[in-house]
Amino acid sequence: MFNKEVVIKCAKEYDSFYLYDESKIIEYTNQLKEKFNNVEFLYSNKSNPYPMILKTVFLQGFGSDSASLAEVISSSNHGLTKEKIYYSAPGKSMEDIHGAMDISVIVADSLDEILRIQEVAKEKGVTAKIGIRINPNFGFYSDKGIASKFGIDEEIIFENGKVLKKLENVEITGIHVHVRSQELQAEVIWKYYERILNLAKKVQKELDINLEFINLGSGIGINYSVDDNPLDTTALGSAAEKLIVDLKRNMPQVTVFIETGRFAVTKSGVYATKVVDIKQSYGKTFVILKNTLNGFIRPSLAQLISSYSSDESPAGSEPLFTSVNAFDFIALTDESQEEVVSLVGNLCTGTDVVAKDILMPKLKCGDVVVMTNAGSYAAVLSPMQFSSQVPPAQLFLSVNGEIVE
Amino acid sequence: MFNKEVVIKCAKEYDSFYLYDESKIIEYTNQLKEKFNNVEFLYSNKSNPYPMILKTVFLQGFGSDSASLAEVISSSNHGLTKEKIYYSAPGKSMEDIHGAMDISVIVADSLDEILRIQEVAKEKGVTAKIGIRINPNFGFYSDKGIASKFGIDEEIIFENGKVLKKLENVEITGIHVHVRSQELQAEVIWKYYERILNLAKKVQKELDINLEFINLGSGIGINYSVDDNPLDTTALGSAAEKLIVDLKRNMPQVTVFIETGRFAVTKSGVYATKVVDIKQSYGKTFVILKNTLNGFIRPSLAQLISSYSSDESPAGSEPLFTSVNAFDFIALTDESQEEVVSLVGNLCTGTDVVAKDILMPKLKCGDVVVMTNAGSYAAVLSPMQFSSQVPPAQLFLSVNGEIVE
Repeated sequence: MFNKEVVIKCAKEYDSFYLYDESKIIEYTNQLKEKFNNVEFLYSNKSNPYPMILKTVFLQGFGSDSASLAEVISSSNHGLTKEKIYYSAPGKSMEDIHGAMDISVIVADSLDEILRIQEVAKEKGVTAKIGIRINPNFGFYSDKGIASKFGIDEEIIFENGKVLKKLENVEITGIHVHVRSQELQAEVIWKYYERILNLAKKVQKELDINLEFINLGSGIGINYSVDDNPLDTTALGSAAEKLIVDLKRNMPQVTVFIETGRFAVTKSGVYATKVVDIKQSYGKTFVILKNTLNGFIRPSLAQLISSYSSDESPAGSEPLFTSVNAFDFIALTDESQEEVVSLVGNLCTGTDVVAKDILMPKLKCGDVVVMTNAGSYAAVLSPMQFSSQVPPAQLFLSVNGEIVE
Repeated sequence: MFNKEVVIKCAKEYDSFYLYDESKIIEYTNQLKEKFNNVEFLYSNKSNPYPMILKTVFLQGFGSDSASLAEVISSSNHGLTKEKIYYSAPGKSMEDIHGAMDISVIVADSLDEILRIQEVAKEKGVTAKIGIRINPNFGFYSDKGIASKFGIDEEIIFENGKVLKKLENVEITGIHVHVRSQELQAEVIWKYYERILNLAKKVQKELDINLEFINLGSGIGINYSVDDNPLDTTALGSAAEKLIVDLKRNMPQVTVFIETGRFAVTKSGVYATKVVDIKQSYGKTFVILKNTLNGFIRPSLAQLISSYSSDESPAGSEPLFTSVNAFDFIALTDESQEEVVSLVGNLCTGTDVVAKDILMPKLKCGDVVVMTNAGSYAAVLSPMQFSSQVPPAQLFLSVNGEIVE
């Protein structure tokens, strides 16, 4: 699950830290590569942009799903060529477009943005090959589209087909569709893929353009809690392959991308922290941990959000909230006696609650508590500066056993 | 309300920024000083530790309510003497205690922590005068106490009275009680103060010690939404004075502290950002703003939390969530035409929603949108590193008109 000995070793030097395990990243990226044929993968940098993770994922042959100019530049600096970096995000500024055009494929998020890209391309004297993000007329579970801040409505694309097919300095060569993360049912995803591929055919035909790429987005989910059935990547991969082989009969030139979302890295990371105090209050035992809300916010946020819901197991709102039992809390102690405790943080805020009334081995000050599923949307989403605590370290365990900070 | 001209000026240089107005800090700190006699104030550094804000607040004569060793050191570096810095937080480490002992008054948060303080004091060959944080047998609205990660249960204090009154190297000279933030009803607060002062008398008597300070914590709230009635500081100040004058007949030596919480600074700050794109989708208008969830997380978090609650106006969980209408959104445009829009952010996440379906003046790209109540728990709680966007600046408008970064 995670390398206990290495965590114990690192805990001698650090009071709280993330540990990312390269072997796990390779395991999960390999899983994708083995199960899917005729597909290229794009790593969603924002899920964890820690440099050694980018290096590992890119060395596996994955490209980049970049959500900011800085992510584009970082991916480029890691050696990715332009054709491996896809920059898709709402609200790109002229500066963003300027900086990204030569080193990435820009995916336009609105009609106005296409005009902005055109302006920059004109200025540079080039024709920019771009993608367009489409807000489709369907969802994972529905035949209807919904209003979205992302992309351009399918209807609007076709209404503007004549304009879009012959733009000066801009050539639309790809589409990008993403409406939902963290799906664990293979069938739901491949039916969704099928619809996107049909949409792609329609775009190619109606706009009379040659699509060079189709980005299916990132529906692929990772199992967080023990109640989650892992996504059947074998079934999904084989269904996707059939669809893509079929597609390529008509569109042999096209590259199909799938964004990894958090799939590649979630399981690679743990967050480790230490018990700094234990107290009894009104018959309850509080175990106080270092740097929780400020070091790894998601467990505390899950408690907070769940406290507002009347649903016992409220639906996720990614990437801030997956589920109330998305993280395991594992005490590194030989103590066999157990007790019911609440895990809380050392911040001066009552919202700094990690877990309420859970059974843990009897803990003492200095004991290490490990939280799982901390490889994605973890360090990047936590307000490390809050209360001016010494922030957690981020450490990387290489396959050769070396620990890199 | 806020200095529009200065915001417009700063917006020429920065796409998103906090602007803190010194004159507002002086206004609110002066309000406290004028309305309360016989009270000293401690500024809660964690609400906004921006250096120019600390400087301003401390120059007003306020001390520090520090929640970490770094906050203690920062307060000390700003020139506060030991008797002006109170270090109260759960789970202080031996290193924290070591670093803080000579430059602050440590408020012990558990019985074990008292032993840790004793160990450090012994090592240093000193007697540490400390406070103890008490988890009282009452709340703001209740005659009962509740289980808490903060402080030592009142019962446990008295059960251990004999031990606590004669500790080697440690002398208990103060108490600290805080159970709730953001109360806007003066009467609720002064009745709570009265109970704390009675508790203080009991502690002094039963432990047979001479209390030098009583920290009443920070119940004092700030009005966020237009529906909030501001706290009546005149009424609270005069009620508090009567209680304290009465107390001082028996305890003439005691200093009474009130923590400012966010009161001193919330209204001093605005968050300004720009429109980066506007789009229509399924009949809705989305205005895309720069750096919202990642720049000023609280409006987006308020939307997220409210979406889980069946209550139209769910109760706050400070400091992450105050209320769904805690922030105003003001467009700096001369446009008189209005429309219903959703304000969203430029991150690649659907949770990056600032406000849904609100009436705003018709906006265009580049327009500045100002969010109010951003002087506290704002920059410090936002995951600035997320998606590697260029983070917002923090700017300070001095009373002399100078803008300091």
